[in-house]
Amino acid sequence: MNERQRARRPGGRSARVAAEVHQAVTDLISERGYGNFTVGDVAARAGVADSSIYRRWGNLETLLSDVALTRLNAQSPMPDTGTLAGDLRTYAAQVACEITGPDGLLLVRLAVALSTNGQQGLQARDELRDERTRQLQSMLDRARERGEQAPDALGVLDHILAPMYIRVLFGIGPLTPDYVDGLVDRLL
Amino acid sequence: MNERQRARRPGGRSARVAAEVHQAVTDLISERGYGNFTVGDVAARAGVADSSIYRRWGNLETLLSDVALTRLNAQSPMPDTGTLAGDLRTYAAQVACEITGPDGLLLVRLAVALSTNGQQGLQARDELRDERTRQLQSMLDRARERGEQAPDALGVLDHILAPMYIRVLFGIGPLTPDYVDGLVDRLL
Repeated sequence: MNERQRARRPGGRSARVAAEVHQAVTDLISERGYGNFTVGDVAARAGVADSSIYRRWGNLETLLSDVALTRLNAQSPMPDTGTLAGDLRTYAAQVACEITGPDGLLLVRLAVALSTNGQQGLQARDELRDERTRQLQSMLDRARERGEQAPDALGVLDHILAPMYIRVLFGIGPLTPDYVDGLVDRLL
Repeated sequence: MNERQRARRPGGRSARVAAEVHQAVTDLISERGYGNFTVGDVAARAGVADSSIYRRWGNLETLLSDVALTRLNAQSPMPDTGTLAGDLRTYAAQVACEITGPDGLLLVRLAVALSTNGQQGLQARDELRDERTRQLQSMLDRARERGEQAPDALGVLDHILAPMYIRVLFGIGPLTPDYVDGLVDRLL
């Protein structure tokens, strides 16, 4: 087993380092906010060398994007209920629950931070968006394979996700189950 | 004429001070970003006393919100074309043009900054939102008075404004005239 394979063994040292680095990032975001800490701060907090972070993630922006994606995948995994209406309702309800929580604006804040932070920021933002879009597309593809008519992923973004995000951002609430289901029904 | 009347005379000293303070805020936002300057910084840049700012705006959050509203009203005044479809298409096109410009994310950045800045921030955000909603509502009321069927203001926010903002925030572009008109047509 070479060095790289050992470093990547699941559950091994590499996974522990990743978990510690992710936790350090989460703590620093909540204490200082985006834009107010460096790779060095993350490394110090996680008890690892700066070089470990640069080797694995390349830059701070990619690390921030990875932390957000891990969190999104844990909190709002794409459902597979057997029908498109069921999938979209479940997904929309998960997102509504997540974004009305205490850290609800985290994704919007990250997108703002990455969008205003040069080429590396834009690239990290685009990768995050593309990965979530791929997951959403898989859900829509499964529906089409079952013979259901499905909207495209941008339709889901425009008319289910965007209204919920903007309502939370401007303090228009609450996102009731009726409202959230209504967004799904209107799109379908 | 008492002191207060003199201070509020349009085009007088008060208007000049307001213009200088607004310009100072705009400069500081673009140089340092939200959250990275104080009332004292604005006063120093505008060449006025801190107390002049506190007397007129009360706090930094209200001042930021006033600057954003003035800018919105100048760049995207609510149109009055004689038909609802015309009004909404014109308004949507203005917003699309504004948010795809170099400072396009200003309103989203302000909303994020105010949302994460305590009670004064939330209040300033709510006042900004309510003022723009009132203007939009007047446009929709005019349509109803002409006998047209009009959506409510939240429908316009959810299905015309929110998709455009979220697309810009996540770098999904461009907002073509066909796309923007399509959002209006879909809602009507």
